[in-house]
Formats: sequence, C-alpha cells, structure tokens
Amino acid sequence: MLVGHKHYRTIWIDPSEPEVIYAIDQRNLPHQFVIEKITSVDQMAEAILEMHVRGAGLIGAAAGYGMYLAVLEASRTPSEFEAVLSGLSGKLLSTRPTAINLRWAVERQLESLNQHDSIEEKIQSTIRVAYEIANEDADNCQRIGKHGYKILEQLTASKAPGPLNILTHCNAGWLAFVDYGSATAPIYEAHKHGLNLHVWVDETRPRNQGAKLTAWELLEQGVPHTVISDNTGGHLMQHGKVDLVIVGSDRTTYTGDVANKIGTYLKALAANDNGVPFYVALPSSTFDWDIRDGVAGIPIEQRGNEEVKYARGWSGNQFKEVLLTPEKSPAANYAFDVTPARLVTGLITERGICEANESSILKMFPEKKKAHAG
Amino acid sequence: MLVGHKHYRTIWIDPSEPEVIYAIDQRNLPHQFVIEKITSVDQMAEAILEMHVRGAGLIGAAAGYGMYLAVLEASRTPSEFEAVLSGLSGKLLSTRPTAINLRWAVERQLESLNQHDSIEEKIQSTIRVAYEIANEDADNCQRIGKHGYKILEQLTASKAPGPLNILTHCNAGWLAFVDYGSATAPIYEAHKHGLNLHVWVDETRPRNQGAKLTAWELLEQGVPHTVISDNTGGHLMQHGKVDLVIVGSDRTTYTGDVANKIGTYLKALAANDNGVPFYVALPSSTFDWDIRDGVAGIPIEQRGNEEVKYARGWSGNQFKEVLLTPEKSPAANYAFDVTPARLVTGLITERGICEANESSILKMFPEKKKAHAG
Repeated sequence: MLVGHKHYRTIWIDPSEPEVIYAIDQRNLPHQFVIEKITSVDQMAEAILEMHVRGAGLIGAAAGYGMYLAVLEASRTPSEFEAVLSGLSGKLLSTRPTAINLRWAVERQLESLNQHDSIEEKIQSTIRVAYEIANEDADNCQRIGKHGYKILEQLTASKAPGPLNILTHCNAGWLAFVDYGSATAPIYEAHKHGLNLHVWVDETRPRNQGAKLTAWELLEQGVPHTVISDNTGGHLMQHGKVDLVIVGSDRTTYTGDVANKIGTYLKALAANDNGVPFYVALPSSTFDWDIRDGVAGIPIEQRGNEEVKYARGWSGNQFKEVLLTPEKSPAANYAFDVTPARLVTGLITERGICEANESSILKMFPEKKKAHAG
Repeated sequence: MLVGHKHYRTIWIDPSEPEVIYAIDQRNLPHQFVIEKITSVDQMAEAILEMHVRGAGLIGAAAGYGMYLAVLEASRTPSEFEAVLSGLSGKLLSTRPTAINLRWAVERQLESLNQHDSIEEKIQSTIRVAYEIANEDADNCQRIGKHGYKILEQLTASKAPGPLNILTHCNAGWLAFVDYGSATAPIYEAHKHGLNLHVWVDETRPRNQGAKLTAWELLEQGVPHTVISDNTGGHLMQHGKVDLVIVGSDRTTYTGDVANKIGTYLKALAANDNGVPFYVALPSSTFDWDIRDGVAGIPIEQRGNEEVKYARGWSGNQFKEVLLTPEKSPAANYAFDVTPARLVTGLITERGICEANESSILKMFPEKKKAHAG
C-alpha cells in the first residue's frame, strides 16, 4: 500500500542482497517511517517478540523469512544442521503464543525442508516457500477485499444518504499482513471504487495499534476516519452511527470462535445488542483446525504490565513514555480475547464469505472435512 | 478518606477564611497532591469545566459552594444583585451538561435564596446550604457503603476461597464525591471489616480516571487492586475472574437507565453475557425524575479531541503529553454512555438497594411518586 505515494510491502527481500530481510519497524509509526535490516534469527525473533513486526499475516511471513535465515545459519555448521535448525525454529515458535500463523508458517517450512536432502536445496526451498507465504498472504488479502467489498456495497445501497460508517478494532490493516490487510482490504477496495465511507478507529489500548497504525494507514491512503477511545463503540452503535464492524483475527477455531486483540469481544457484544453486522476478515491460514472451544482452548498471551502503566507517544520530536498509574499500582496485560461464534455475523475469507459455524466453515474448506469427520 | 494517613475531603472551607473554598486539584493525581484555593465563580466554573474537580457528587458540592461565591460576588453590587446572580449561576450550570447533580445543587440554592430577602440572609443561606449539600453527600455515600457491603458479604460467602474480585470503571471513588465515594464506598466498608477483596481498575480512557484516581485512592487505603486497559473486562468475566461489577453514575433516569463514563455500557453487556452481577451505586441526588428513556433523552457531553489524541502522564518528574495518533487524524471524544436498565442488577442508594426499574425506584422514593402518577 501507499506510504507518501510510493508502494510498499511490510516485509521484503531486495534480490541484490538475498541474505537480508527488510521490514518496516512499526514501533516508530506514525511518527517515523523506519526500515529495519534483519540478518539473523535472533534479530527476527526479537522483531516478532518486541513487535517491530506484528499482526497475523505479517507474523506468518516474518516466520517464513525467519526460517530461511535459520537454514542459512544452520548451513554454516553442516554437521549440526538439524540440531541448530531445531533450536532456531523453536526460538521463532516461542515468540508469540496466540498467533496461529507463526506455527503454520514454521511447520510449512519444515515440511518442505523434509523433502530435500542437500543443504543447498534446503536453502533454495526455504527462500522459495518464504516468498510463497508472503505472496499468498498478499493475494489472499486482495481476495478478502473483493469479497468484503460486496458487503459494503450492499449496506451502502440499503442505508440512508451519508457515508457508510465502519468500526474497526486494532490494526488488521496492511501493516498486519504483507499488503492490503484483512479488515482493511474491503475498505481499500471500496475506497478505490469511490464508495462514500468513514472509519471509526478504536485506539486499541494498551499498545494503541489503532491510533498509531490503522489511523496512519487510512491517512496515507486518503480514507476518511476518526480515532476514538476503546470505550466509545457501544455509544456510537446505540445512536445508529455504526453500519458495520470489521475486525481481523489472530486465530479462529473451525467452529467460528475468534481470538483477536483484547476488547474485540466487547465490540461484538455491542454490535449484537444493537443489530449491527459484525464481520471478521481472515485469510484461511488463521484458522485453527484443532480447537473446538475458543474461549476454553485458545492460549491468551499476557504481556508486560509496563504497556498498561505507561503510554508511549511523540513529544518534542522524539518518543516518550509517560506513567499513567501510581508507580506502585499493579497492572495486568492480557493481549487477546475470544469472541464466541454466536456474536459473529460472518467470516470474510479469501474464498468468500461464510457463517461462523463448523458446517459453513467446512463447506468452504472441504479439504479440512476429513480431519473432523466423526 | 486517607491521603498519607491523614483524613481529607475533596472540597472544604477553613472557618478562619470563610470566603475561600479549598479543593484537591485532581489533575495532578496520582503524581502530585495539590490543594487549590478558589475565591470566585470564574475560578469555580473553570475548576469544574477543566476537571480540577469532577465526579457526580463533587460537581454538586462544588456547584453548591460556587453558588455561595456567586452570592458573595453579587452582593458587591446590591442594585444589580439578581442580574449578576443569574449570570453567575448560568455560568456554573453551563460547565458540564451530563452531570445532573450540578443542576440539582444550583436549583436547591436558588430555592433557598428565594426564601430570604436581605443580602446578608442570602449569604448565610447559601453557605449553610453549601455545607448541607457537602455533608449530605458524605453521609449518603457512607450509607451506600453500608448497604453495598451486604452484597459483598453475601457474594463472599457463596464463592470459592480467594478474594472477591470487583471490577469498576472510571472513578466513582471518594474523589468523585465529598468523601467515601459511591462505587468505592461498599469496597471501603468491606475492607474495614477485613473482607478479602481485590479490585480490577479499568484505566478509563481518554482521561484515565481509573488509572490515575481510583488506583491512587485504593493504594492510599491499602486495598489490593490491579489496573487493566478498558478492553480487558470481558475476557476476565469469560474466565470467572470477576465476581461483580460496581460503577457509579452521572445521571440515572427514574426508569433505571444509567448515564456513566463512556465504556460503562460495554462492561454491562459483558457482565450480562457472563452472569456477573452489575451494580450501580448512586446517591439519590443523581436521579433524573424527568427523563424516561435514558438512551434517547440524556444529553451526552462531547469534549475536545486532544484528550483522545494525546495521553497525559508523568515523565522526568513532570507532567507531559504525548501524541498517540498521526497529527492529522481526526478524533472524537464522547464522555458518557447510557447503560439500559435491563443490564443493571441493582441500584445501591443511601436508602437501600432496589431494582433498576420505575416501580422499584418509586417504591424506594415514594415522595417522587406524585410527579409520575398517570
């Protein structure tokens, strides 16, 4: 998508330097646009853990490229190749527990590696699969955009004059993927077609990915938007100021339960209470085909309490952290919550739109049916 | 309540200087404890508008003392007494549109003024009524504490071992009243009786009254607590980590609809979805006996967008504001929302606990029945 009118992806390789991964360091947005060079698994693991890169699809793509770096590193000690690779892939896997795409990308790389014997072939395999993961992510997001656009078009046709008001939580934008985004893809597609729309952007405490990343994305693409505190969505819905909600997902069970940024569940409850459609946009790599009960089964990452106790922002041309709470007050920081399928109007995937229940999901992904027979 | 082991109220007069109102300037908490001297209606109006003093009961008490200052000022030009007083009371009334206690206190002062002819009598009347409003507020909060404590005692008896987990939103603590608080009064009463409890404190963006004020209050009284982002309550309730919710109110209709800090409605929805009791603690001065439908009828204050775009906190031994959003992104700032009565388990008032519906409320306040007959 556009940054200062130039097209970027969130992560890429420059063919002239094939052992360097480039990524936008998102910690600096919206105030600075910094590109980071990543040349080791340690750096990639830190970039994922410390959220230089974050978001479902981008974590998957970063893990894909990370596995390529892992094979390069392991190849330097051929006699211990398997042991080193196993340690490095374990390091990547341990960075973020809730993100299903991380595991999915690492496992896809390992499966592909198993089909090759020579180290040179393994290197070629991982770089090819890393590209595939990234390109598929971008393609899938673009397809999500086209399917989701139909919903926006229909809702616009059936509503009173004025912009279509969409509420989104966190950043499921192109910054969370390789390009286009999941929740934002229908918005960008609709904006391209000239649909009159306006986006309510939840700031998304404690890390403010909405205020920092989603608002920045929308500003760069020229999409009208308004930042609100996370507390505001219910009031807006009560007063008819939200026509639909679209959020992303970090993991969705095959029964339709949706793990997404903490606070998503509260917006789903408000949408349900006010008859506002609540859609989740996700590439199918985000499905968890093993977990039936999302609330009971999806592990929820807890992060450091300093993210709650402090706010990080821009002051005097630099980043500053300000303490919000009394210094001695404890704080807790749950990063995700699970929205039960009963509150979800539909899932927008790269194959089309389905209901958030087992039979609709398995009808759209019939190749997964076998695993769930009986 | 206690500040550094010494007892304070939020607003008071020192009898040796009867034309000065003292108040805690709450903008500086939790990092600095500043006492402000207020000697004019302009200063009092600014203190209310800029939230040096805030919260349902304290706004009422501040307006009561403000009317005393108004009469003192009007008495300096006896020939224009009525015109000056009318202008000054209008100034006080226009500061905060949602807070019902503001109007209630100003009208109570005006009614009392009408019963006196001489300016000297009017001065004596307003200072007496200002004291009455403040003392009644403190008494009512103490009564709310005793009634609410019974609920906490019962819930503790019926639950598994471990602390009783109470979630609260915003600050309906003693800082929002003259003393004790509304939502916090049962907590302080229970703590005094040695009940094992723990409070989840919603930070309450955009002004962070939870992170700044409620956490500070609880810390000063020694009540165990944990600050969380506003997004977190739903997740905690899904996992059985909240035994009840208690919030305050800025205005409650006689039908039981509750206007309170933006985001309260979202917590009420989550409590309802998880079978968690949701109580609202309020002195009866917070009732609006005229409005039937709270969502349609209660005016909702909109504040400046800088409160959303920036976070204010403590850094390098001073207050700093940091920009969270892109500089050019618009933001909206609705200060309150309305929780429909159907989501409220009960109202804790100074007279006791009633259900959030017209017949229960009028049964507890029978003197209001006449106005609603037919």
